[in-house]
Amino acid sequence: MTRSTGIAHLPIQKIQDAGIQATIDELAIEEPLEIRVQYGPAITRREQSVSITMRTPGNDTELATGFLYTEGIIPDITAIDLVSTFTSNSILISLKTTVPLDLGKLQRHFYTTSSCGVCGKSSLEALRTVCPEPQPGVNWHITADNIYNLPNQLRSHQNIFGTTGGLHAAALFDKDGNFLTAKEDIGRHNALDKLIGANLQDNNLPLNQHILLLSGRACFELIQKAAMAGIQVVAAVGAPSSLAVELAQENNMTLIGFLRDQRFNIYAGAHRVRI
Amino acid sequence: MTRSTGIAHLPIQKIQDAGIQATIDELAIEEPLEIRVQYGPAITRREQSVSITMRTPGNDTELATGFLYTEGIIPDITAIDLVSTFTSNSILISLKTTVPLDLGKLQRHFYTTSSCGVCGKSSLEALRTVCPEPQPGVNWHITADNIYNLPNQLRSHQNIFGTTGGLHAAALFDKDGNFLTAKEDIGRHNALDKLIGANLQDNNLPLNQHILLLSGRACFELIQKAAMAGIQVVAAVGAPSSLAVELAQENNMTLIGFLRDQRFNIYAGAHRVRI
Repeated sequence: MTRSTGIAHLPIQKIQDAGIQATIDELAIEEPLEIRVQYGPAITRREQSVSITMRTPGNDTELATGFLYTEGIIPDITAIDLVSTFTSNSILISLKTTVPLDLGKLQRHFYTTSSCGVCGKSSLEALRTVCPEPQPGVNWHITADNIYNLPNQLRSHQNIFGTTGGLHAAALFDKDGNFLTAKEDIGRHNALDKLIGANLQDNNLPLNQHILLLSGRACFELIQKAAMAGIQVVAAVGAPSSLAVELAQENNMTLIGFLRDQRFNIYAGAHRVRI
Repeated sequence: MTRSTGIAHLPIQKIQDAGIQATIDELAIEEPLEIRVQYGPAITRREQSVSITMRTPGNDTELATGFLYTEGIIPDITAIDLVSTFTSNSILISLKTTVPLDLGKLQRHFYTTSSCGVCGKSSLEALRTVCPEPQPGVNWHITADNIYNLPNQLRSHQNIFGTTGGLHAAALFDKDGNFLTAKEDIGRHNALDKLIGANLQDNNLPLNQHILLLSGRACFELIQKAAMAGIQVVAAVGAPSSLAVELAQENNMTLIGFLRDQRFNIYAGAHRVRI
């Protein structure tokens, strides 16, 4: 297997109609990334592993900063002092000495405490610990025509998917449906963390004048991350889950699903869509 | 939102060609499940939360037992003494008093230790802690025609996906390509845990005379779980990742991808496929 950015090349056999063809296929690369955080005042400085995620290499700094932000671990980009990469599979984020690290915020990802009792509560209550307060509505509208056009624009910018068919994407558009940027990853949550992390680094948050397009299904975790970034309009090419819809409704977000072939469904926040 | 098994019903607006239609849509339910384990001798009996996963309710016992097995936490079904469900979102697995619980095995899921150093190693080495030793090859073959027929059989058995379009599935076939059983879930790893857990409970492991079909992409985690269950032939409707292929090669497994429309690619173990 040989490798280039995000893509591995592998000799395979293609079978079709009982014929065999030897060829080189292009695969999306999947590798673990460990995110470590250094925190605390100089004399008691400590280091903590906060996540290992299976991701497609590329935009690792954006992935790490986006993860820390959407999980509520850092309040903004100024909390970060330095980002160091020691190996291709490990990244260390040094927080400023004055920034406290709330290890409780990590529980949703670690689930180690035997007394968190998270599932004794209702599902939404349980997971809302990392969700922001619902934001006031933003007074702008999107037209159906602009929504129809989002997937085509994404496809023309989805580089690695085009060759491997193996990646999820998260794309950002302005409120008129003009393409701004997209990130790809083998994990849908990583693609969104990369997108939000890049915008966090560029001081673009909150993204409340934007539309987020997801290349696949919309689950709870993606809507939660979008809400953390202030995104109020989310469109997904695939189906939303029940919990994704409930969270969107609670956060006064617009959630569109099954966006393909000049049609879509509105699951929440229909008042922002103009037909 | 009203609910039935695995499905929520929600009033939505369907937009097509600038027309609006109010309708009731069916969504795949997504809810957290906390898996807790009780272990140790009677006098020092302890309880530990080992996982919270976002899953579609149904087959929770199979999901929990499958998870514990594929993560290497229990060696077989006889380790389990009792399964109790306290709330719809929490399940407690009591291990026999003589069964030790290796908390180290949980690290792949928890990632809390600051000294695991997992990413200092190569990716495969790092994650192989929960992988079995490669098994000896099994002397049977599958024909291309039998492989072509797998997805159609799965579709006719994928109940909730048919109405929601929002679920992944894992299906088991015998070596002649005859459908045996399938499980669905909003998370692909959960669907496979449910399938393996059900077969673990029925004492069917190892599944080395079977074919596993995945409704989506094949990533590392799914191949690792399949290997734990002794599965040697995996076919996926979607793309495999680089790490999935490497793990399949190492474990002497056959890995087929892009299985659709009377064609497929062979990424590993081509000697088992007869054209």
